[in-house]
Amino acid sequence: MAAAQDQTAGSPATAYTHDPALEQLIRSKIRDVPDYPRPGILFKDITPLLADSAALRSVVAALGAGFGPVDLVTGIEARGFILAAPVAACLGAGFVPVRKQGKLPAATYAESYELEYGTATIEVHTDAFEPGQRVLIVDDVLATGGTARAAVELVRRSGAEVAGISVLLELAALNGRAKLAGLEVRALLAT
Amino acid sequence: MAAAQDQTAGSPATAYTHDPALEQLIRSKIRDVPDYPRPGILFKDITPLLADSAALRSVVAALGAGFGPVDLVTGIEARGFILAAPVAACLGAGFVPVRKQGKLPAATYAESYELEYGTATIEVHTDAFEPGQRVLIVDDVLATGGTARAAVELVRRSGAEVAGISVLLELAALNGRAKLAGLEVRALLAT
Repeated sequence: MAAAQDQTAGSPATAYTHDPALEQLIRSKIRDVPDYPRPGILFKDITPLLADSAALRSVVAALGAGFGPVDLVTGIEARGFILAAPVAACLGAGFVPVRKQGKLPAATYAESYELEYGTATIEVHTDAFEPGQRVLIVDDVLATGGTARAAVELVRRSGAEVAGISVLLELAALNGRAKLAGLEVRALLAT
Repeated sequence: MAAAQDQTAGSPATAYTHDPALEQLIRSKIRDVPDYPRPGILFKDITPLLADSAALRSVVAALGAGFGPVDLVTGIEARGFILAAPVAACLGAGFVPVRKQGKLPAATYAESYELEYGTATIEVHTDAFEPGQRVLIVDDVLATGGTARAAVELVRRSGAEVAGISVLLELAALNGRAKLAGLEVRALLAT
């Protein structure tokens, strides 16, 4: 928790992977889209980065590095799938989709979290994780941490272990790390 | 079109990648879920395959093989992202997400297609593809071909070229190939 609070106090350097060349590459490939999804919001669009083959490969490799052995990588519908699945393939791990409510066909565990207005629910198959497996959670953006926290709970529900949470971009001002105390959280770039 | 008709006439052997060992692996890792999403439907659940690290790697490699040089791989929200993004990283190509209406932040092209009841619309950023680029469309399932056809139109709208359509599983009875005449369509397994 102290580390999370340091984030908002302006000393995030130790809290995310520090690779200046990669940070510069990512920064150059993220497009700011004003007024999306609502007026006044500046959206960080990662599609230029995804479309750049060299950047995609570098980001996928970096997202999977440094967490030790990983049995499964999990990604959250829908954008989270785009980075998490290649990280799984790159690490030689399996992939588990965490999906929005009602989208998985077999029996699921569900976890709800708060949004700005109302709540959202994500689910995972009850047989997706086994006790003792090490699971890496990969997502594109860490914002308030609500989604990541819910994913952590879904992994632990099966007795599996969270190897870490690895994200491309951390919106540090939103202090998502406060919800992820005690977990290894890495971002390739923090803004 | 003749090739597509042969599919439904029961001689699909030349129309999809024929690798008996891989077919057997895929078959063993697809779970049939009855009555999903509606009573009477037998859903082909690929999550056991995704969770198996060796199967995931084999499938990703096979989906990207045999289409010649590929600049970009495109996948369709949401399940399509799970296989298309690793194929992009594996091939050293970039990745372009085709998303449901309203989900992409910048200017888009849109394409609608028919569903069983009503229509659906998918979109891609107008600057996602450049004229002359070779684009591989990857998806998990080829069913009626409506989504794949719409994706083809989105690629061509920018003057880019469809290198092919590569899917894990083809539901041959639905004759999706009829909508994809003249295109290189490969499935790792047809049922």
